[in-house]
Amino acid sequence: MFYHVKELQYQAKPERPDPLFAKKLQEVLGGQFGEISVAMQYLFQGWNIRGNGKYKDLLLDTGTEELAHIEMLATMIARLLDNAPVADQEEAAKNPVIAAVLGGMNPQHAIVTGLGAAPTDSVGYPWNGRYIIASGNLLADFRANLNAESQGRLQVARLYEQTSDRGVRDMLSWLLARDTMHQNQWMAAIAELEEKEGKVVPSTFPRKLEKREVSYTLFNFSRGDDSALGRWASGPSPDGCGRFNYVANPVPLAPAPHLPPAPPYIYDTPP
Amino acid sequence: MFYHVKELQYQAKPERPDPLFAKKLQEVLGGQFGEISVAMQYLFQGWNIRGNGKYKDLLLDTGTEELAHIEMLATMIARLLDNAPVADQEEAAKNPVIAAVLGGMNPQHAIVTGLGAAPTDSVGYPWNGRYIIASGNLLADFRANLNAESQGRLQVARLYEQTSDRGVRDMLSWLLARDTMHQNQWMAAIAELEEKEGKVVPSTFPRKLEKREVSYTLFNFSRGDDSALGRWASGPSPDGCGRFNYVANPVPLAPAPHLPPAPPYIYDTPP
Amino acid sequence: MFYHVKELQYQAKPERPDPLFAKKLQEVLGGQFGEISVAMQYLFQGWNIRGNGKYKDLLLDTGTEELAHIEMLATMIARLLDNAPVADQEEAAKNPVIAAVLGGMNPQHAIVTGLGAAPTDSVGYPWNGRYIIASGNLLADFRANLNAESQGRLQVARLYEQTSDRGVRDMLSWLLARDTMHQNQWMAAIAELEEKEGKVVPSTFPRKLEKREVSYTLFNFSRGDDSALGRWASGPSPDGCGRFNYVANPVPLAPAPHLPPAPPYIYDTPP
Amino acid sequence: MFYHVKELQYQAKPERPDPLFAKKLQEVLGGQFGEISVAMQYLFQGWNIRGNGKYKDLLLDTGTEELAHIEMLATMIARLLDNAPVADQEEAAKNPVIAAVLGGMNPQHAIVTGLGAAPTDSVGYPWNGRYIIASGNLLADFRANLNAESQGRLQVARLYEQTSDRGVRDMLSWLLARDTMHQNQWMAAIAELEEKEGKVVPSTFPRKLEKREVSYTLFNFSRGDDSALGRWASGPSPDGCGRFNYVANPVPLAPAPHLPPAPPYIYDTPP
Amino acid sequence: MFYHVKELQYQAKPERPDPLFAKKLQEVLGGQFGEISVAMQYLFQGWNIRGNGKYKDLLLDTGTEELAHIEMLATMIARLLDNAPVADQEEAAKNPVIAAVLGGMNPQHAIVTGLGAAPTDSVGYPWNGRYIIASGNLLADFRANLNAESQGRLQVARLYEQTSDRGVRDMLSWLLARDTMHQNQWMAAIAELEEKEGKVVPSTFPRKLEKREVSYTLFNFSRGDDSALGRWASGPSPDGCGRFNYVANPVPLAPAPHLPPAPPYIYDTPP
Amino acid sequence: MFYHVKELQYQAKPERPDPLFAKKLQEVLGGQFGEISVAMQYLFQGWNIRGNGKYKDLLLDTGTEELAHIEMLATMIARLLDNAPVADQEEAAKNPVIAAVLGGMNPQHAIVTGLGAAPTDSVGYPWNGRYIIASGNLLADFRANLNAESQGRLQVARLYEQTSDRGVRDMLSWLLARDTMHQNQWMAAIAELEEKEGKVVPSTFPRKLEKREVSYTLFNFSRGDDSALGRWASGPSPDGCGRFNYVANPVPLAPAPHLPPAPPYIYDTPP
Ligand SMILES: [Ca+2]
Ligand SMILES: [Ca+2]
Ligand SMILES: [Ca+2]
Ligand SMILES: [Ca+2]
Ligand SMILES: [Ca+2]
Ligand SMILES: [Ca+2]
Repeated sequence: MFYHVKELQYQAKPERPDPLFAKKLQEVLGGQFGEISVAMQYLFQGWNIRGNGKYKDLLLDTGTEELAHIEMLATMIARLLDNAPVADQEEAAKNPVIAAVLGGMNPQHAIVTGLGAAPTDSVGYPWNGRYIIASGNLLADFRANLNAESQGRLQVARLYEQTSDRGVRDMLSWLLARDTMHQNQWMAAIAELEEKEGKVVPSTFPRKLEKREVSYTLFNFSRGDDSALGRWASGPSPDGCGRFNYVANPVPLAPAPHLPPAPPYIYDTPP
Repeated sequence: MFYHVKELQYQAKPERPDPLFAKKLQEVLGGQFGEISVAMQYLFQGWNIRGNGKYKDLLLDTGTEELAHIEMLATMIARLLDNAPVADQEEAAKNPVIAAVLGGMNPQHAIVTGLGAAPTDSVGYPWNGRYIIASGNLLADFRANLNAESQGRLQVARLYEQTSDRGVRDMLSWLLARDTMHQNQWMAAIAELEEKEGKVVPSTFPRKLEKREVSYTLFNFSRGDDSALGRWASGPSPDGCGRFNYVANPVPLAPAPHLPPAPPYIYDTPP
Repeated sequence: MFYHVKELQYQAKPERPDPLFAKKLQEVLGGQFGEISVAMQYLFQGWNIRGNGKYKDLLLDTGTEELAHIEMLATMIARLLDNAPVADQEEAAKNPVIAAVLGGMNPQHAIVTGLGAAPTDSVGYPWNGRYIIASGNLLADFRANLNAESQGRLQVARLYEQTSDRGVRDMLSWLLARDTMHQNQWMAAIAELEEKEGKVVPSTFPRKLEKREVSYTLFNFSRGDDSALGRWASGPSPDGCGRFNYVANPVPLAPAPHLPPAPPYIYDTPP
Repeated sequence: MFYHVKELQYQAKPERPDPLFAKKLQEVLGGQFGEISVAMQYLFQGWNIRGNGKYKDLLLDTGTEELAHIEMLATMIARLLDNAPVADQEEAAKNPVIAAVLGGMNPQHAIVTGLGAAPTDSVGYPWNGRYIIASGNLLADFRANLNAESQGRLQVARLYEQTSDRGVRDMLSWLLARDTMHQNQWMAAIAELEEKEGKVVPSTFPRKLEKREVSYTLFNFSRGDDSALGRWASGPSPDGCGRFNYVANPVPLAPAPHLPPAPPYIYDTPP
Repeated sequence: MFYHVKELQYQAKPERPDPLFAKKLQEVLGGQFGEISVAMQYLFQGWNIRGNGKYKDLLLDTGTEELAHIEMLATMIARLLDNAPVADQEEAAKNPVIAAVLGGMNPQHAIVTGLGAAPTDSVGYPWNGRYIIASGNLLADFRANLNAESQGRLQVARLYEQTSDRGVRDMLSWLLARDTMHQNQWMAAIAELEEKEGKVVPSTFPRKLEKREVSYTLFNFSRGDDSALGRWASGPSPDGCGRFNYVANPVPLAPAPHLPPAPPYIYDTPP
Repeated sequence: MFYHVKELQYQAKPERPDPLFAKKLQEVLGGQFGEISVAMQYLFQGWNIRGNGKYKDLLLDTGTEELAHIEMLATMIARLLDNAPVADQEEAAKNPVIAAVLGGMNPQHAIVTGLGAAPTDSVGYPWNGRYIIASGNLLADFRANLNAESQGRLQVARLYEQTSDRGVRDMLSWLLARDTMHQNQWMAAIAELEEKEGKVVPSTFPRKLEKREVSYTLFNFSRGDDSALGRWASGPSPDGCGRFNYVANPVPLAPAPHLPPAPPYIYDTPP
C-alpha cells in the first residue's frame, strides 16, 4: 500500500518556459527507459518475487522512489509549458524563432493535455507495458535493471547538454546522481547473485542438456576477422566453465528445409 | 550486404505436429526478447557504431547469426503446424483434447498465415521497433545485449520444459548453447569496456555536474529495512568512486509545487 | 446498411493552406477523442445493443453523423495541405518562416498520403480500436460518450484559438455546436437511465455482495486533508444509498503477502 | 513523493490456483479500464492541475489508493498461477480439463513472467499511455473518471460471476465497493463543478462563437424515428440554455468538395 | 454525408451460438485485412482524391458498402456469443468440451464488450490506422486494394472451412462473392490506369533519374539459381521498357562505411 | 543461414549533414512500406512457402537484398546526423534556420540513438510485425509485394524531390531503379500464376459455394453514377468468368436485426 506527500523529492523548477524542451523531456518520463518504465519494472518485480526478502525490499524501495521521479518530471514539464505561445499562431509566425517553437513543440501539449505532461515519449508515442520485464529470475531482471539505468542516465546526460536553463540542469543533475546510485546498486546485487549461483541465466538449467560444443564458440558470419581480437574469442569464458573458440568460416549444419504442401482447406497456392 | 544459403544453421524438425506449442514458440521468435529483437538490435548497433572496428565486427557477426535463428524458428513453427486440425471444427470438438487444441492454438496461424510463422509473440502481439536499443554508447548497449540474452535463454529453458518432443528439444538445446555463448561474449565485452572507461554509463559525463551527495545513497521508501542488508547499502561502491550509505527515513527536499493557472485560451477549469 | 451523398454536412474550406494546422487538426480526426473514435464508438454500441429501440436508433443516428464529420475534417486537411512547400527544401530553408513550416509539418503528409488526411492523431500516432468502448451496459457507455464529447469539444475549442483562418474557424464553430448538442443529448439519456435503474453501474449487481463498509469512504492517502472539504467527504451520497465518510489515516487491512517459490521448471532464482 | 508499506490494503488470497482466471483478471489490472489506468489517470490529473487545492488532494488520494489496487491484483494473479501445470504438456493433455487449461491460459504467464502478473490485459495486449486522459479541464476529466469507474465496476462484476473461488470473490467484493465510492465521489465532484461553471465543457468558450442553430438539434441520420421518443429530442436541454429539436430528414449544407490536383513533385495519378 | 437504414445488406444469422468462432470471425472484422480496413481505406482514398470523378465515385460506393459488411459481421459475432457459458466456470469445467470453449474464447467478449463485437482481430489486437493506405496515387492504391481483397477473400475462405454452421456459411458465401467482385473491379481499374499511364508507379518520375543499369536486374543473393527459371529473369519486362537480366554472383558496389566519432556531448563510447 | 560483408550494395554518402532529412528518410527505412517491411515480408514468405522451388528462391534472393537496403539507409541516416546542432540549444535558437532544424528534427536521434538510425518511420512510430503479410498463398502475397514496391517507390520519388543533396539523390536513384525491377518482377510472377490458376484469390475455393448472383455486381451506394462509366461496371470481368452489372439503387436484403437480451450475469442495461 502507498502513501503520498505533496512535497517533491527534489526541486523541479526551470528558470523559464521552453515548450521545445518540454517535448524532449518527455523521453525520460514516458519513453522506453523513462521513469514510468523503471517504476513499473521495479514494482512488478517486487510484487512478483517469490521469497527473497532483502531483494523484494530493495525493489519496492527503488520502485517507490521512481514514482517520485515521474512526479518531478511531470511538474517540470508543466512549468516548461507555462505561457506556451499556442494562441495567435498567425501573429507568432511573424517571429521566426517563435514560429520554430510552434512548429517544433508537441501539439498534444497544447490540444490534449492543456499544458501538462503525458505518459508518452519525446515523439508522442505512448508508454506501453511491453517496455518492462519482470521474469521472476532475479539475476536476469537485475541485468534488465542495470541496462535501464544505463540507458536512462545516458539519455539524461544528453538532455543536460541540450539546455542551458539552470533550473532544468539542477534537476537533471539530481537524476544523474540517482542513476549513478542505481547503476551501482544493481551492479552490487548482480555480483552477489553471480557469486552465489553462477553467471549464465538461468543457472539451474542442466548444462548437459545444451549443445555444449557450441556454448563458447564465436561464429564469424560477417566477413573480416576483427572480432577474433576481443576477449570473447579465446581464453577462459567469464562463467568459468569453458574456453572461447573462434570459427572463421562457419557452415550450415542442417539441410535446406522442405515443407509439405498445406491441406486443401487452407487454400494455399495449388501445387 | 548479405548473402543467404538455404541450409539451416541447425536442424529444426519436430517429431510431430503440435499447434499449441507453435503458438508458444512464437514468443522466442517475435517476442520482446525473441530472435527478431536480437537480430535487429545487434545489426542496428553494428550499423550505427562510430569507429571501434572489433566491436562492429562482433555485432555484425552475431546479428547475422540471429537471422539464421529466426529462420530456424520459422521453419520449426511451420512444421509444428502441419496438419493442424482447423477444418471440421464441429467434428473435432467431439474429441475433448482436440477441442482444447482448437481453442488454444493461435487462430491467425490458421486464418492469416496459412500454417506458417508470423513476426509476433506467443499472444499474437506484433514485434515492434521499440523493443530494441542502439544508443551509440557501447557499454550501455552491451548491457542491453546481456539482458536480452539472459531473458531469452530463460524463456527457452522454460519452453524446453513444456514439450517432450525430442526434435523440438534438440533445436532448443542448440539455442540454449548459443545463448550461453552470447551471455559470455557480452560479459567479456562489458568487462573490457568497464576496465577501460569505468562502470557508470556514460563514463564521460563530468561527475562534478551530478549531485554527488546522493550518488551512493539508498533511500528506504518502502517500510522495512531488509534492504539495508545487501551489498548495495554499505561499503565501497562497484564503480570504485564512493561508499554506499543508507537513509532509513527519507524526507522530501522541495516544497509542494504550485502551478500557475493556464491562460484563458487553453479552456481549463476556470479559477 | 449505409448510403452516401457527396455533399458535405457542413462546409470545410480554409481561407489559405496551412500545413502546420493540418497536422494539428489530425488530433480531432484520428486522435483518442477524434471523430473516428466517436463514429466507431456509437456504431459499435448501436450494433451490439440488445433490445432498447430508441437508444439503438439514437446511437446509429449519431454514429452516422460522425462519419460525416470524419469526411469534413479529411477534406479540410487536404485543403490545408494544398501547395505545401515540400519540394525545394534547400530553397525554402532560406526563408525562416517557411523553414519552420517544413520542420513542423507532419512529414507523412508529404511522403505517405500525398497531401491528404490519415487516420492518425496530431503526433502521427495511428487511431486504434482500444480507444472505443461498447460494453453492452448503456449507462456505462453513455458516460463514455459524454466524456468523449467533453474531451472532443475541449480540443476543438483549443484548436479554434490556434488559428485565425476564418474558413477553419467557421467549420470548427459548427463542430463545437454539434458537440454541445451531443453533450446535452448524452446528459439527457443518462438522466433517463439513472432515474430508471439507479446511478451506480452496474445497477443490477446485488449490493449486498460488495463490502458495503467501504462503499462510501474516502481514504486520505495523500498527506493534507483538503480533500475533506468537498461534497464527496460527508453528507448523503449521490446514489441515495449511503453517507460519505472520511478516513484521515488509513491503514492496511491485510498482512504483507508471501509467495511460495516457483517450481524448478520455471527456472526462477534458486532459493 | 511516495512511501510504501508491504501490507496490502485488502487481502488477495484465492482458495486455489486457477491459471485461466489469472488470465482473465489481467483485464482489470492492465486493461483499458484497469487499475493501472485509473492510477495513472488520477496521478497525472493531480500533477498537471493548475491551482484548485481540494481537487488536487482528492486526485492524489485516489490515485495513490489505486496503486494499492494494482498491488492487490498482481498478488492475486501470482497466487492463481501457483502450480500451473505448464511442464509435462504431453502428460497433461491426457486429461481433457487440464488440456483446456493449458490451451487457455496466457502463455506469457509461463514463458515470460515466471508465474507472475504483467501490465497487460486479458488478451495479453500491453497497457499503454493513450488509455488515460488528463486534459487540465476538471469537469471534462471527472467525466472521464466517472466513465472509468463505471466500466471498471462493470468488468469486475462480470468477473465475479465467472468464478466461484471464495477468496477471489472476497477481493472482488472489496474492489466493487471501492468502485461504488469512486463513482459516487466523481458524481459529487461533477455536480459541484457543473453548478459553478455550467454543464457544457469547456464552459468558458464563448457560446456566440458556435453555430447555435444546431446546438440543440437531433439529426435523424438513421432511418426510423424511434430516437424522437427520448428526452434528447424535445423540451429544454440539460444545460438550461436551449430547447431540443428534431430534424427528421437532414440534408447536406455544403456542396460536394473538389480538390485541386497535387503539384507534380507529389507524383499523384496524372490528371 | 451518410445515411443509415437498419436493415442489413445481407443476412447474418447463425444456426447456433459458437463463442470460439466468434473469436475467429473478428479477424475479418477488425484484422489487418478485415472490413474496417477496407472501409476506411476506400473512404480515405475517396476523400483524399484530387479530381478523377469516376474513381472517386467508385471508391465511395465501395467504401460505403464495406460499412455494411462491418455491420453484418458485428451482428453475426453478437449472435454467436448468445448464451456463451461464461458464468459457472467451475461447473462448466466438468464438461471438457465446454471447458475448451471457456479456455479458447476471447475473454474480452465476456468481460469487456458484454457479448458483442469489438474492433479487434482474432487474437484481440486492436485495429489501427497504419493498416490502411491512401497515397494519392491511384494506381498504387488500387494495387493496395487488390491485395486487400485477395488477402480478405483468402481469410474468409479459410474461415468457411472451419465451421459447419449453415447460417455462418451462408453469410460467408455472400462476402466471398463480394470479394470476387471487388478483386475484379480493382483489376479492371488497374488495367485502365496501366494502359493510360504505364505500369511502374509512379509513372511520372523521370526514368532517366533512376540508375537504369539495375532497373531490370535480378541479383541472386540466395545460393541456388532456381530463381533464374522464372519470367522475371530474362526476356522483356512487363512494363515494356527493358529486358530482364540475371546476376548470379552479385558483388558490393561501395566500400565499407566508416562513421566519424560522435561529438562529446552525445556521450558515446569514448574513442 | 546468412553471411554478411561490410561493403555496401551501393554507396550511401550525403554531401552534407541534414537532420531534418534524416527524420524524413526514416519513412522508407522503418515505415509501413519501408525496407524493413519488404525484407521481413519476403523472408517470411520464403520461409513459410510449402514447395514451389523457384518462387522460394526468388523470395529469399529479394528479401536478402532488402537487408542490404536497410543497411544503406541506416548508414545514410547516421551520416545525415553528423554534427547535428543538438547542444547549445539557446545559442542555436538565435539563428532562426537552425532553430527550425532543432524544432523539426526527430528528438530521439539526439536523445535515444546517439545520432543513429532507428527502426521507426518519419514520425517516430516503431515498425511493427502487422505491416507484413505472408499468407501461404503466393498469388495473394505477390499482389501484396507489388503493392509494397509501388507504395515504396512512390515514397522514394517524393523524398527525391525534397532534397537537393547530390549524394542522397544518388542513393535514392539506385533505390528507385531497384523498385522498378521489383515491381516488374512481381508483375511477371503474378502473370505466371494468374495464367496457371486463375485470377481470383483463392482460386481453389469452389465457385459454386459463393453467392454468384453478386459476384460481378457494382452496387451504387454513393449518390451519383459516375462509377457506372468505368470498365468495372459492364462488359466481361477480368477473371473471364462473368459479366459486370450495375445496380443503381441497391436495397437491403435482410431485415433489421434484433438481438436477444444478455443473461443477467453479464450486467447489461436491464430490459
Ligand atoms: Ca529514476
Ligand atoms: Ca539467438
Ligand atoms: Ca463529431
Ligand atoms: Ca480501483
Ligand atoms: Ca467486404
Ligand atoms: Ca528495397
